[in-house]
Amino acid sequence: MSLPRVTVWNEFIHETEHDSVRAIYPEGIHGCIRDFLKAAGHDVQTAILIQPEHGLTDEVLDSTDVLIWWGHVAHHKVDDEIVERVWRRVVAGMGLIVLHSGHASKIFRKVCGTPTGFLRWREAGESEVVWTVEPSHPIAKGLGPNFVIPHEEMYGERFNIPAPDELVFLGWFEGGEVFRSGCTWRRGRGKVFYFQPGHETFPIYHQAEIQQVIKNAVLWAAPQDEIQPGTEEVSFTPAPPVMALRDTGFQAVEGLHDKAE
Amino acid sequence: MSLPRVTVWNEFIHETEHDSVRAIYPEGIHGCIRDFLKAAGHDVQTAILIQPEHGLTDEVLDSTDVLIWWGHVAHHKVDDEIVERVWRRVVAGMGLIVLHSGHASKIFRKVCGTPTGFLRWREAGESEVVWTVEPSHPIAKGLGPNFVIPHEEMYGERFNIPAPDELVFLGWFEGGEVFRSGCTWRRGRGKVFYFQPGHETFPIYHQAEIQQVIKNAVLWAAPQDEIQPGTEEVSFTPAPPVMALRDTGFQAVEGLHDKAE
Amino acid sequence: MSLPRVTVWNEFIHETEHDSVRAIYPEGIHGCIRDFLKAAGHDVQTAILIQPEHGLTDEVLDSTDVLIWWGHVAHHKVDDEIVERVWRRVVAGMGLIVLHSGHASKIFRKVCGTPTGFLRWREAGESEVVWTVEPSHPIAKGLGPNFVIPHEEMYGERFNIPAPDELVFLGWFEGGEVFRSGCTWRRGRGKVFYFQPGHETFPIYHQAEIQQVIKNAVLWAAPQDEIQPGTEEVSFTPAPPVMALRDTGFQAVEGLHDKAE
Amino acid sequence: MSLPRVTVWNEFIHETEHDSVRAIYPEGIHGCIRDFLKAAGHDVQTAILIQPEHGLTDEVLDSTDVLIWWGHVAHHKVDDEIVERVWRRVVAGMGLIVLHSGHASKIFRKVCGTPTGFLRWREAGESEVVWTVEPSHPIAKGLGPNFVIPHEEMYGERFNIPAPDELVFLGWFEGGEVFRSGCTWRRGRGKVFYFQPGHETFPIYHQAEIQQVIKNAVLWAAPQDEIQPGTEEVSFTPAPPVMALRDTGFQAVEGLHDKAE
Repeated sequence: MSLPRVTVWNEFIHETEHDSVRAIYPEGIHGCIRDFLKAAGHDVQTAILIQPEHGLTDEVLDSTDVLIWWGHVAHHKVDDEIVERVWRRVVAGMGLIVLHSGHASKIFRKVCGTPTGFLRWREAGESEVVWTVEPSHPIAKGLGPNFVIPHEEMYGERFNIPAPDELVFLGWFEGGEVFRSGCTWRRGRGKVFYFQPGHETFPIYHQAEIQQVIKNAVLWAAPQDEIQPGTEEVSFTPAPPVMALRDTGFQAVEGLHDKAE
Repeated sequence: MSLPRVTVWNEFIHETEHDSVRAIYPEGIHGCIRDFLKAAGHDVQTAILIQPEHGLTDEVLDSTDVLIWWGHVAHHKVDDEIVERVWRRVVAGMGLIVLHSGHASKIFRKVCGTPTGFLRWREAGESEVVWTVEPSHPIAKGLGPNFVIPHEEMYGERFNIPAPDELVFLGWFEGGEVFRSGCTWRRGRGKVFYFQPGHETFPIYHQAEIQQVIKNAVLWAAPQDEIQPGTEEVSFTPAPPVMALRDTGFQAVEGLHDKAE
Repeated sequence: MSLPRVTVWNEFIHETEHDSVRAIYPEGIHGCIRDFLKAAGHDVQTAILIQPEHGLTDEVLDSTDVLIWWGHVAHHKVDDEIVERVWRRVVAGMGLIVLHSGHASKIFRKVCGTPTGFLRWREAGESEVVWTVEPSHPIAKGLGPNFVIPHEEMYGERFNIPAPDELVFLGWFEGGEVFRSGCTWRRGRGKVFYFQPGHETFPIYHQAEIQQVIKNAVLWAAPQDEIQPGTEEVSFTPAPPVMALRDTGFQAVEGLHDKAE
Repeated sequence: MSLPRVTVWNEFIHETEHDSVRAIYPEGIHGCIRDFLKAAGHDVQTAILIQPEHGLTDEVLDSTDVLIWWGHVAHHKVDDEIVERVWRRVVAGMGLIVLHSGHASKIFRKVCGTPTGFLRWREAGESEVVWTVEPSHPIAKGLGPNFVIPHEEMYGERFNIPAPDELVFLGWFEGGEVFRSGCTWRRGRGKVFYFQPGHETFPIYHQAEIQQVIKNAVLWAAPQDEIQPGTEEVSFTPAPPVMALRDTGFQAVEGLHDKAE
């Protein structure tokens, strides 16, 4: 089985505007993530906000098994039509990994159904300890009971997400807060993972444990079958009975109105 | 403690167009539901599609603890702005009960984050057996192990919903299908219940067990605290540490950009 | 509706052996819990290890809607037969609230199915911050976003429990650890709540927020129907079909062997 | 990565006592399952009730990644000590697949924490339709929306299990019942799958879809790390703080009493 093909999306603004961020990520956060996933053997593409269609054309998505999303200050600049397109791919089977400030992105809000922008935050360079709650989860493979991020932006509860299907990691912050830092959900046939670490002013995506989690998550989120967007619509045709149906005395009424969205 | 105040929303189209439906629900499906909830002591309002703002003004929602939703052929006619308004109320604490063909409504798709229109269906007047899976759930109070609906539209799996927080009822259909007929989710501070029975051409909302489930669901879905829309935004202000924070050597950077949606 | 009747069980050893503990809980931890539940209007009994049948006779359990459990150094002295008796009550509908070091008790291990004794711990009098993850949960009623316990024994992940049905509270500890501090599960018809705070050498059960959580939990855990131990056995009799079953050509074979436990 | 090593356990009584069962499973149900798993490339051992230690010696378990369990009339003859031994392996990471009448086995009751013997049942050779609820789950790989078992024993709700972590399959029965036919749970580091089909008087384990599910489940249930029984006990040593702990003014009290089970 060949490895999942990944597309890394980044709004790519901080890196162009701040020397301090560019010093950490000279080719952008997406460049850093691309590099360690390529080294792990994946086919990796990148896409950024200012490209036509934000770089997320049908052609790009056709060759994407797992999409990674990083955004922060420009969530509102992402076109609703592209968000809808990405969402349709997710529910058809494409994996989605949302990183850090992507919690407030349109695509994450859409798959969650809650105002996921809401959480506590504080930028003070404090340390975070990430704890593994489900050591047997594929996304925790190779990780120990905990690891430390020396400097991180604080994200604290209550994080306004639906209860995750699986809670994999919890985060502890110096100033007294906790966070559900690694969470999974299924949406349609697609798997979604949110991972909290990753502020742009700290070299977090260079840290070995963080890269391990993202590599694990890519393998976990990959679709197990070929993605076939739109094929689920077949269920809208009236279903013939699986077993013989007695004569109910009713005229079967079928397909009078379109139930499709 | 006073009983939750309920608003019953209905697109109210079938009843105006088909004598057969009007014969069953002379005052509309919403009228039937209103009547048995009033008899149970609730303050009940109704609202329909053709009213200004679909009858769901801020004033109406201000006096609504639980909203019940029935729609079928006109989901696309519901204004996106009203859907957004209702959704903001739900995540702030208003209960939401979605009935039958409401599975494809905009509001249910928005809280689920999946294309909930997808399921198998067949109109042949076949019988359904509804089974209680969680007898200790408040929504199952007073119900036995199962009850029979003599004639129902078939809804079959796979129903494209996120895994429910709680699965309360399962449905069995004569022709061979099964369905997750009673499901709950939390979204923000609001509680959501989907209940599958209820086709407009059968007198389902006159059936005692169905009324019992809906009455139970209203009590369960009611907010436990006063609803305060918008107050969660406070979490967007940077959070002072709960515990003393050592000097991290970093300049605290606060509120440089609006994280609000 | 009358308030749930509560029985508070305590192994009652620390209080008899250590002046420092007795100074905090002169009538035992069970006495302290009894008092604030009585003040809230509940009928409350207490029971301790050294009583015959550990005070948990059938008569006592017959008048118990919710059982609260505190134990620490004498889990192994609790008779297996009494554990079995309590477990049968729980699955028949009696609520169970397990406090602090009760995590390693026989009854909690039995309802969990995991070695729940396993967790990190450290006694250093450090502070804990308890965070509300599900503010709309009945057990969180009246609580704010967080509250502080000035001195507590540290309990840290990984806590070897099955993924909770609902995660209500998370705990933060000064030394770097986090904990799933408030968790719920259904078992049979019974509801189970585990609450982590409560070390015997600190006056934790005198703290207002802790008392609020326990009072909320009692209301939540109470059975909604009358408890009828043993009545579920009826399902072992072969079930007649709910709907007419065609002639399958097979001789119906019924009840040849006892499937009961 | 080599394929998981499987041990198939069978009480092996029906096949020795009834010609009709032996005709279907000449080498026992375990022999049938062994054969199709061997054909899929797995190392497979079998074990039966009458062997010393029921064939589940430490040596056998040392070379077992996934244990499959089939029992029916002799659950009470399985030694409690062996059940405890198997359970310790499961929470340490060994996968467990429980088939059909194994629902009432001691090991399944122990991992569930509920009286899992309770369900409705009827032997009338009626047909079952198995529906896939989570098509993207690894255990559903390669399966379609549904498949039919021509003749099966009916198992109906309410099945007295804890709410599954994941509901993969639902079963429909001719006489009007439904069942949660494919369910998963995590327990400790181990993964547990219950699969309802499989009565001994029908050739169910010869059916292609059933074999596909069991083969999928073996791959899913396999531990991702080497199983190291007992190593979690390390968490019983008091934990040094991960981060510097201020002087709390308390004497650290460590390991005064054994918290181990």
